[in-house]
Amino acid sequence: MVSISLGQESTSGRANKDGELLSRDVKVRMLPLFAEIQEDLKVVDSELRRLLVHPDPLLTQTATHLLAAGGKRLRPAFALLAARFHRYDLQRLLPLALALELIHMATLVHDDVIDRAHTRRGSPTVSAAWGNRISVHTGNCLLAKALILAAQYRDPLIPRELARVCVKMCEGEIIQLTGTVSSVREYLYRIKCKTALLIAASCKLGAAAAGAPLAVYRALGRYGYFVGMAYQITDDVLDLSGTEAQLGKPVGNDLRQGIVTLPVIYAIRRSGAESRLGYLVAKQPKSEQEVEEAIRLTIIAGGIEYARGVAGRYLAKAIGELRHLPDVPARDSLRQIAEFVHARSY
Amino acid sequence: MVSISLGQESTSGRANKDGELLSRDVKVRMLPLFAEIQEDLKVVDSELRRLLVHPDPLLTQTATHLLAAGGKRLRPAFALLAARFHRYDLQRLLPLALALELIHMATLVHDDVIDRAHTRRGSPTVSAAWGNRISVHTGNCLLAKALILAAQYRDPLIPRELARVCVKMCEGEIIQLTGTVSSVREYLYRIKCKTALLIAASCKLGAAAAGAPLAVYRALGRYGYFVGMAYQITDDVLDLSGTEAQLGKPVGNDLRQGIVTLPVIYAIRRSGAESRLGYLVAKQPKSEQEVEEAIRLTIIAGGIEYARGVAGRYLAKAIGELRHLPDVPARDSLRQIAEFVHARSY
Repeated sequence: MVSISLGQESTSGRANKDGELLSRDVKVRMLPLFAEIQEDLKVVDSELRRLLVHPDPLLTQTATHLLAAGGKRLRPAFALLAARFHRYDLQRLLPLALALELIHMATLVHDDVIDRAHTRRGSPTVSAAWGNRISVHTGNCLLAKALILAAQYRDPLIPRELARVCVKMCEGEIIQLTGTVSSVREYLYRIKCKTALLIAASCKLGAAAAGAPLAVYRALGRYGYFVGMAYQITDDVLDLSGTEAQLGKPVGNDLRQGIVTLPVIYAIRRSGAESRLGYLVAKQPKSEQEVEEAIRLTIIAGGIEYARGVAGRYLAKAIGELRHLPDVPARDSLRQIAEFVHARSY
Repeated sequence: MVSISLGQESTSGRANKDGELLSRDVKVRMLPLFAEIQEDLKVVDSELRRLLVHPDPLLTQTATHLLAAGGKRLRPAFALLAARFHRYDLQRLLPLALALELIHMATLVHDDVIDRAHTRRGSPTVSAAWGNRISVHTGNCLLAKALILAAQYRDPLIPRELARVCVKMCEGEIIQLTGTVSSVREYLYRIKCKTALLIAASCKLGAAAAGAPLAVYRALGRYGYFVGMAYQITDDVLDLSGTEAQLGKPVGNDLRQGIVTLPVIYAIRRSGAESRLGYLVAKQPKSEQEVEEAIRLTIIAGGIEYARGVAGRYLAKAIGELRHLPDVPARDSLRQIAEFVHARSY
């Protein structure tokens, strides 16, 4: 499997969220995806560190804990690449890039509280190290810091869009927790909220911060949305089709937690709700044997192939959007990212 | 004890946070504090309800749960009163007023997760009714909705200030959770973050939304800060000096949770860290007898009187700020609120 490096190697401890594009493997080679913004991403990274320092040493410790644990700065990268389509100015982009990463970090901290996960990328989670109470407030603090940065823009578009995405992300999480998603439509809405909207916002707001025309803004927003959808579907496929070594976590985590993803929804539709698979998926908790059996039945029913097909169609749409954009090197990078997501699912 | 009504009666189930000014008692009579904005507060309330309705019925349920449980809309009331000093326009004030209340509600929902409280004002908490996971996301959703509203203002001052206050509020909570506050100075910083800054923001941003001159904006900000400090000190005094019937919760809740407040800090300073009181305060968990003994020792050492004195000085400062403001009816209301906080501590 192809991989890239952005300066960290990692094994993901994430259970079921969007996780990190490009985060699953050891360094193999540096794909040119982010080459043109590589230096600027380092600036984002060091600004992020500076931002999280606080007079209270414990506050600094908790907030920088996640930083130290790694992360690919994927959302800032999308924002910077999108800005390449118009007047690229790193100083003007920095507050947005930082805000995007802080929002992402806030969701990771809050997920830790919720999933009772003990490690993330090999390091103990904030929650495991300091307790749930601290995690809730650390996450809130990151979120609020993101919105301070967003409020630096004169144009209220950026803070408003980011706050809207935050609302949707919460909705997605609540839907995941409360509803047993049973239709493809519900699943797609959930992953849109959970993953795709923040990536779409990264792309379109990067363009907005660069003063790009509306057509560019919209095309990049759609590109980000389609890539984000494909990425999450791929992540959900890998949770069933990957190996523990590849994933850095046990296979079938979603099923174990009662989260029903696209391959399983399709497989149940094929086999019927009264089937053995339908029974196993609904049963909570499941034994390890039952998780394995549910995975096997999902694969046999063609769930993996179906989901890969859906992801592929999203990626084709993403690449299609690029045709509306000016022919700058960043366009190639965005196309390669889409191709990378596709390659990743196999 | 004097009380006012804003249309709800309530018994507070809150443990130790700023809670609700004016929320502790049955209806006695309607003080004129909020009379001039009474009708507009009803508009705020109905807008708040409208805002929390969502296509997903469960999301509406969780978010409106707190609304149904009551609340005095204190922060919106401060914002509306502050706006009376310049060009009062309810439509222009509404996003701010709603944002302030949503931020406050978000902290209440997140506190529920943290305190493992089971009821708030007699109703089960969101956390008790739907589980911690839902509470974290419901709180985040309220916070993000607040910041969408704030981003409606062209002037970035309002979203920036609100986001800054949110950061400070989280810091206050984290300090409370991690540090054993042992000095008056640390205590004052903590309650500033936890309570006073949001009330200060309510006052000054109400003025800002009404286009008030800088001098008015600043004087109202200081007024809100001083009243907020006095209010929280008074709340902490009542936690030790009130009766269970008055408080609607057991006396000594802060001590029970290991939270050291101003009366106790003073009493330990008087009796020495090696004293029986010092021992009892540090001991966790405490038996009910130990909580009672610590309260008695705090009272004997003059902790209550000392804290009342500090609160009184903050209130005098608050009233002093009003002298810099134009002589409009809202100025009288703000003075009466300060006097009410003072009366409340006895």
